[in-house]
Amino acid sequence: MHAITIPEPGGPEALVWTEVPDPVPGEGEVLVEVVAAAVNRADVLQRQGFYEPPPGASPYPGLECSGRITALGPGVSGWAVGDEVCALLSGGGYAERVAVPVGQLLPVPDGVDLATAAALPEVVCTVWSNVFMVSHLRPGETLLVHGGASGIGTMAIQLAKAVGARVAVTAGAPDKLARCAELGADILIDYREQDFVEEIRKATDGAGADVILDIVGAKYLDRNVQALALSGRLAVIGMQGGVKGELNLAALMAKRAAVTATSLRARPLEEKAAIVAAVREHVWPLISAGRVRPVVDQELPLSDAAAAHRALDAGTHVGKILLRA
Amino acid sequence: MHAITIPEPGGPEALVWTEVPDPVPGEGEVLVEVVAAAVNRADVLQRQGFYEPPPGASPYPGLECSGRITALGPGVSGWAVGDEVCALLSGGGYAERVAVPVGQLLPVPDGVDLATAAALPEVVCTVWSNVFMVSHLRPGETLLVHGGASGIGTMAIQLAKAVGARVAVTAGAPDKLARCAELGADILIDYREQDFVEEIRKATDGAGADVILDIVGAKYLDRNVQALALSGRLAVIGMQGGVKGELNLAALMAKRAAVTATSLRARPLEEKAAIVAAVREHVWPLISAGRVRPVVDQELPLSDAAAAHRALDAGTHVGKILLRA
Repeated sequence: MHAITIPEPGGPEALVWTEVPDPVPGEGEVLVEVVAAAVNRADVLQRQGFYEPPPGASPYPGLECSGRITALGPGVSGWAVGDEVCALLSGGGYAERVAVPVGQLLPVPDGVDLATAAALPEVVCTVWSNVFMVSHLRPGETLLVHGGASGIGTMAIQLAKAVGARVAVTAGAPDKLARCAELGADILIDYREQDFVEEIRKATDGAGADVILDIVGAKYLDRNVQALALSGRLAVIGMQGGVKGELNLAALMAKRAAVTATSLRARPLEEKAAIVAAVREHVWPLISAGRVRPVVDQELPLSDAAAAHRALDAGTHVGKILLRA
Repeated sequence: MHAITIPEPGGPEALVWTEVPDPVPGEGEVLVEVVAAAVNRADVLQRQGFYEPPPGASPYPGLECSGRITALGPGVSGWAVGDEVCALLSGGGYAERVAVPVGQLLPVPDGVDLATAAALPEVVCTVWSNVFMVSHLRPGETLLVHGGASGIGTMAIQLAKAVGARVAVTAGAPDKLARCAELGADILIDYREQDFVEEIRKATDGAGADVILDIVGAKYLDRNVQALALSGRLAVIGMQGGVKGELNLAALMAKRAAVTATSLRARPLEEKAAIVAAVREHVWPLISAGRVRPVVDQELPLSDAAAAHRALDAGTHVGKILLRA
């Protein structure tokens, strides 16, 4: 088969479409013929040499895909050859075929075409596990999402609204904020023009955000704590603004607040399976009912993943960028 | 009545035994004739002028006491004049009488004398709310307690052992560590001689601590994150080592870990009542059964609270220092 390999870390041109051996599904895995994969920020870090695949994972990038099952490994039940699926991956989605543990498979939701389903697993699992399983966002609470127009952001807006929360977003351009509003965001903050701490306070009568979903990391750490409400929870899932930041423990204590940081990729199989199962139970019905939908910005050929990474780096997209096999 | 007042913040001599008006129990409060109060680190901060009582709280120090109910405010049921109680307070324990919301009253546990019961409410509520209600310590997990010989520490050791966890402690002297061992601590770390990160790793086959209960704050923040296990929870309840520290979000993310910071005093009545109710349900039976006991270092007259603060500052005590009215 062919896959995108990274002979040497670097810019988008480091992504090379290469002939490689086919993966073989192990115990409890299926082989999926990839129809589409989706691009994540973590793929860029891997391309740059900053994000080693965890032990045992495919060396190729790609944390989610959709496609058809073409073979079953030993000990697999509940899935059949020919099933249309999407999947959360530890890597290897940028390829014609990928081996997937069954705990990370999801059916294609009603009303979503097979290719588009590739845009779902990573963002839905990331948002659900952080905003709901870790940070316990409740109806009536306020969620602040940094990067509201990103793949993660567009899903977080919809899921939070679906459970009855209020949603604030930051983005760097008025057209992106307009798209966030279309998806349901209540409070729109242009981070190039406005101070998000001040804006979230204004919009919440001084209370602040109950949950913050953050992709910036160090650069926003102190201001995120300032923006939290009493009993607030800051969930860091990205560090685009650096790794080490100053934490004001007195401010955190005055709010009885929590800072968490998680990633999906390195979790053990059973934790991933638990998240996927929760997503299937709680989120899939919302998607099948049309209340939550994947937001896809553009599709590019998988063999030209470099073009997709250039588009991601340019940062003018809203939602996900798909790669078609 | 008499109470300890703080005319000017300062050293132990700032605590002055003064005649003051009697408190009047409001709606849902009782009046308690104080038999004993106990000393907490927060009282020292208040004495020094660093810890303003929250709005509506008594201006006198003292976050816990024991005594007898001498009057009921409007709307009180379930308690009677003459009942022997101990209580979690927002302040005012260093006094002959104090008004207490009924949600913060606890009966005196079987086998504990009335004065000694004053040593229980603040430490038990702090440990239970942080280690169990926030950080969810589970049987078989490892708890690291900084300041194992403190009032908080001696209670945390016993409660964690009672639920089947393994307990590591730090302390600054071999005799203090020996007392921690008598209370059940499994892993003893002399922070003056040993590196706690290295010691906790050695003692857990490299895994680290699942929960850390910390009173040091900024100075230990980075090393506490290093000492955490996968899915570890750092609960900061004191900042004796400073307020602002560097947080390595990449290290936190690699462990999918959480940092929380809480205090009891500023919580709204209903949160305090929920903690007190949980303590009565889960901890009081352990105390009544003799499996967990208050650890009292010494008793001093309430009118000489200054002497008690000098003893606390000296730091040679193990467990709680009581003030007898």
